Amino acid sequence: MMQTPLTMTQMIKRAEKYFPKKLVISRTAKGIERFTYKEIGERTRKLADSLQKLGVERGDKVGTLAWNHHRHLEAYFAIPCSGAVLHTINIRLSPEHISYIINHAEDKVLLIDSDLIPLVEKCKDEIKTVKAFVIMTDEDDLPETTLSPVYHYEKLLAEASSDYEYPDDLDENQPAGMCYTSATTGNPKGVVYSHRGIVLHSMALGLADSAAISERDIAMPVVPMFHANAWGLPFAGVWFGTNLVFPGPYFTPKIIAELIEQEKVTMTAGVPTIWLGLLKELEEKEYDMSSLRAILCGGSAAPKGMIRAFEQKHHIPFIHAYGMTETSPLVIISTLKSYQEDLNYEERLDIRAKQGILVPGLETKIVGKDGEVAWDGQEMGELLIRGPWIASEYYKDERSNDAFRDGWLYTGDVVTIDEEGFIKIVDRTKDLIKSGGEWISSVDLENALMAHEAVFEAAVVAVPHEQWQERPVACVVLKDSYKDKLSKDELYEFLKPQFAKWWLPDEILFLEEIPKTSVGKFLKRALRDQVQKEYLQKN
Amino acid sequence: MMQTPLTMTQMIKRAEKYFPKKLVISRTAKGIERFTYKEIGERTRKLADSLQKLGVERGDKVGTLAWNHHRHLEAYFAIPCSGAVLHTINIRLSPEHISYIINHAEDKVLLIDSDLIPLVEKCKDEIKTVKAFVIMTDEDDLPETTLSPVYHYEKLLAEASSDYEYPDDLDENQPAGMCYTSATTGNPKGVVYSHRGIVLHSMALGLADSAAISERDIAMPVVPMFHANAWGLPFAGVWFGTNLVFPGPYFTPKIIAELIEQEKVTMTAGVPTIWLGLLKELEEKEYDMSSLRAILCGGSAAPKGMIRAFEQKHHIPFIHAYGMTETSPLVIISTLKSYQEDLNYEERLDIRAKQGILVPGLETKIVGKDGEVAWDGQEMGELLIRGPWIASEYYKDERSNDAFRDGWLYTGDVVTIDEEGFIKIVDRTKDLIKSGGEWISSVDLENALMAHEAVFEAAVVAVPHEQWQERPVACVVLKDSYKDKLSKDELYEFLKPQFAKWWLPDEILFLEEIPKTSVGKFLKRALRDQVQKEYLQKN
Repeated sequence: MMQTPLTMTQMIKRAEKYFPKKLVISRTAKGIERFTYKEIGERTRKLADSLQKLGVERGDKVGTLAWNHHRHLEAYFAIPCSGAVLHTINIRLSPEHISYIINHAEDKVLLIDSDLIPLVEKCKDEIKTVKAFVIMTDEDDLPETTLSPVYHYEKLLAEASSDYEYPDDLDENQPAGMCYTSATTGNPKGVVYSHRGIVLHSMALGLADSAAISERDIAMPVVPMFHANAWGLPFAGVWFGTNLVFPGPYFTPKIIAELIEQEKVTMTAGVPTIWLGLLKELEEKEYDMSSLRAILCGGSAAPKGMIRAFEQKHHIPFIHAYGMTETSPLVIISTLKSYQEDLNYEERLDIRAKQGILVPGLETKIVGKDGEVAWDGQEMGELLIRGPWIASEYYKDERSNDAFRDGWLYTGDVVTIDEEGFIKIVDRTKDLIKSGGEWISSVDLENALMAHEAVFEAAVVAVPHEQWQERPVACVVLKDSYKDKLSKDELYEFLKPQFAKWWLPDEILFLEEIPKTSVGKFLKRALRDQVQKEYLQKN
Repeated sequence: MMQTPLTMTQMIKRAEKYFPKKLVISRTAKGIERFTYKEIGERTRKLADSLQKLGVERGDKVGTLAWNHHRHLEAYFAIPCSGAVLHTINIRLSPEHISYIINHAEDKVLLIDSDLIPLVEKCKDEIKTVKAFVIMTDEDDLPETTLSPVYHYEKLLAEASSDYEYPDDLDENQPAGMCYTSATTGNPKGVVYSHRGIVLHSMALGLADSAAISERDIAMPVVPMFHANAWGLPFAGVWFGTNLVFPGPYFTPKIIAELIEQEKVTMTAGVPTIWLGLLKELEEKEYDMSSLRAILCGGSAAPKGMIRAFEQKHHIPFIHAYGMTETSPLVIISTLKSYQEDLNYEERLDIRAKQGILVPGLETKIVGKDGEVAWDGQEMGELLIRGPWIASEYYKDERSNDAFRDGWLYTGDVVTIDEEGFIKIVDRTKDLIKSGGEWISSVDLENALMAHEAVFEAAVVAVPHEQWQERPVACVVLKDSYKDKLSKDELYEFLKPQFAKWWLPDEILFLEEIPKTSVGKFLKRALRDQVQKEYLQKN
């Protein structure tokens, strides 16, 4: 067979050549802007040309601090396809972490949304390696800034050539992108994506049994482009000629609902918090959601009640998936096997509320206290993953040795696997509650609580206990309409039939909100500290 | 990213682990046999164990002479997954060619269907490298044979261990399979498939925009497993947990129709000749074909009239595709773009009767007399292909230099490409009719003729001409019910509105049949000789 490398240049070239009429729809300060792939292709070549003129060479890192929009998409291809490395920076990190990762990655150029300039200004004195700041703005002129030297994205493009040719000698194993993921303690850890990994991951997204991304789709990544490559949707979408819709900065559930309705979005992807918000919006106002063939949900476990509400009240198919920054991210997706379709809705929902089945191309191993666990849906173990789109290390980071061992990624996620191979995340290894030598899944309790119609969000954490070592405490946020109208006892009565007695939380606390990470996940560590203080004071 | 190789072991292991209940349905001498993937997985490991005991080592070639059935499927995985090379031998070749390719490939073991033993016996004295003949028979005892040493497939398996473990250190670039393709003159030419090529090709088959092979499918490869790996369906099918139906030896259109009806086949694949036969069968008897979501058709161009008949009379969606032994084979597939769905049926059919659009992962170039052709659906040029599942040479063969140049495969197929990137095969470079400095496509004339309701088959070839260099002559086989009832003139009247006058054949000959190659393609060379003799005698 020919030794043609699996590189990303083929993706953008295919969109230009075969799908010049298809669209990228971008919500900007100017409103909804529409670009054909012909235009995006030309602009991407111009961006590559501009970056080269700014001194970006093969292997150089170029950082982005940006929302989901067409310019960020151009950066997604111009940077890796010219041989440089796309470093998407999480805009929700602290200024200390932002300057740390820019310096650690050695970013040479930064592409920054104009509204995010203050973020970079706050830490600009710490930033050591950046030679040019390029501002992505919808305005004709650059905003005031203390950053220097500073360039106007559109003016650079206006002076650049669309005759730029991508190099044809890229190696498939060379870095194409990188993304830092928050650590429990210390600085964020960098994950490097290769061209090969991104190409194979995109193929996995296009499989009929997986997310089935196709030319027929109008796909809207709500998951941020600074978070695990927006789950790879921009890459797969461009390659397959999919219309892409980008929701832009500071979107609300209302904006998401309107975009789905107006642009006839067929598939969208994001974390449960986003979909909880959308669900609320749909309960308040009527929208036409009939174009949606799938909401893809990952990042953390989607409560079963939410899936049921989308499907039964709003007739929107909901697909649960699992991945992490280290895994590109798609690993597991909850599409039923054909014979499972014969089950009734509740039985199917029970399966689909699990994270799902391994996508082709990867391997997993689930290791419990006594080696690999049984496929019984009961025994808990840590999920290990291996495959060509799984990171092999953290970039220049000694902490690699904890997570990457014997050729496997140790995810830190505790799971069960059932007879059919469906994996269910029951907890983080750190968040498991170890009570009297047994394990209690905080996630199972949370899901049960969130299935109660009065509950908006719930998180369960461990508190230290003299006799049992640890015991669970539940933190519950009620829906506005139920505030002060539901008692602890009512929730206990709701939980009792569902769990063994020793699983029931020692305490249920009503909170105004659950602290969350920059990507919308529960911040269990902060919550644990807060609860332990409150709980221990009381007891 | 991890450096995990793209090897085929993951495919069969995934079927065993995640789809143990799914089925392989095999038509044998005993009737319809059913095996679960659990059983197929165990039998495949046993076969690998047996081959090892017979002395097969890494890199050794193992030949198969077999129809489409479960044992051949076992060989499809046991051989490459144990590190050896699966050499599928075309049973329709002459004994001289069969012994040539066995010796050229240096096959160490042959797996032979019992009814095909005579084929091998005919050339056994020429065969130099084979150390063991394994007979795949449904009988308890071996048939009489002069082959030696000879083994009984099922008895080998009965003595083998299903604890056999596939090696985990295979290189993705090592050979996994090989297949010889007939040459216009001389011995067949060998194509070697790597593990990487087969894995990537299987992914391409699973893409929603391509053949979309999925766990939900019940797929029946009618295309022989000795011909370009049955277009890769067995590989993709096993990987994705698809139920596979194998039609076994000596099947007829009736058997195909019955299998589709009884096994609720959702997709099937084969050459036009097969589907012409099925169409005839469907016209004679009623079958329930409602399970079929697609007939995949390739190998040579499907006449538009046939596609229309399947779709409009029988409501069976028909997908046109293009590939060759050298390309694994999938290169081009005729799935419409979303906005083309708005066209009316005839307009859509015009597009879908072309071979289609390039699948993701490959590149093409179309080179005419003056460089790359325009995307106008008119200008003709030779199709060049490049990509990770395209051969880079013929195995130990000097003829490689003709077809493989500057990193491209020169297909010898003359095509046009339209504004939307849809490619249409208009001829083989050798079969083009060069008339007065212009090109006439024999395939276009054939398709027009075959669209006539009286015509069963038609082939158009060039005859030498003093003034014009070459002129077309048409050979037509009428349907039984029209024999002796249709005149030449009626066919001319039918063609006239569709073509420029100088395209019309100088002669139309009515034949009893068109000579075909071993894989059902028109044997243009033989036909040309025959016609030139007949035609020149007359004129």
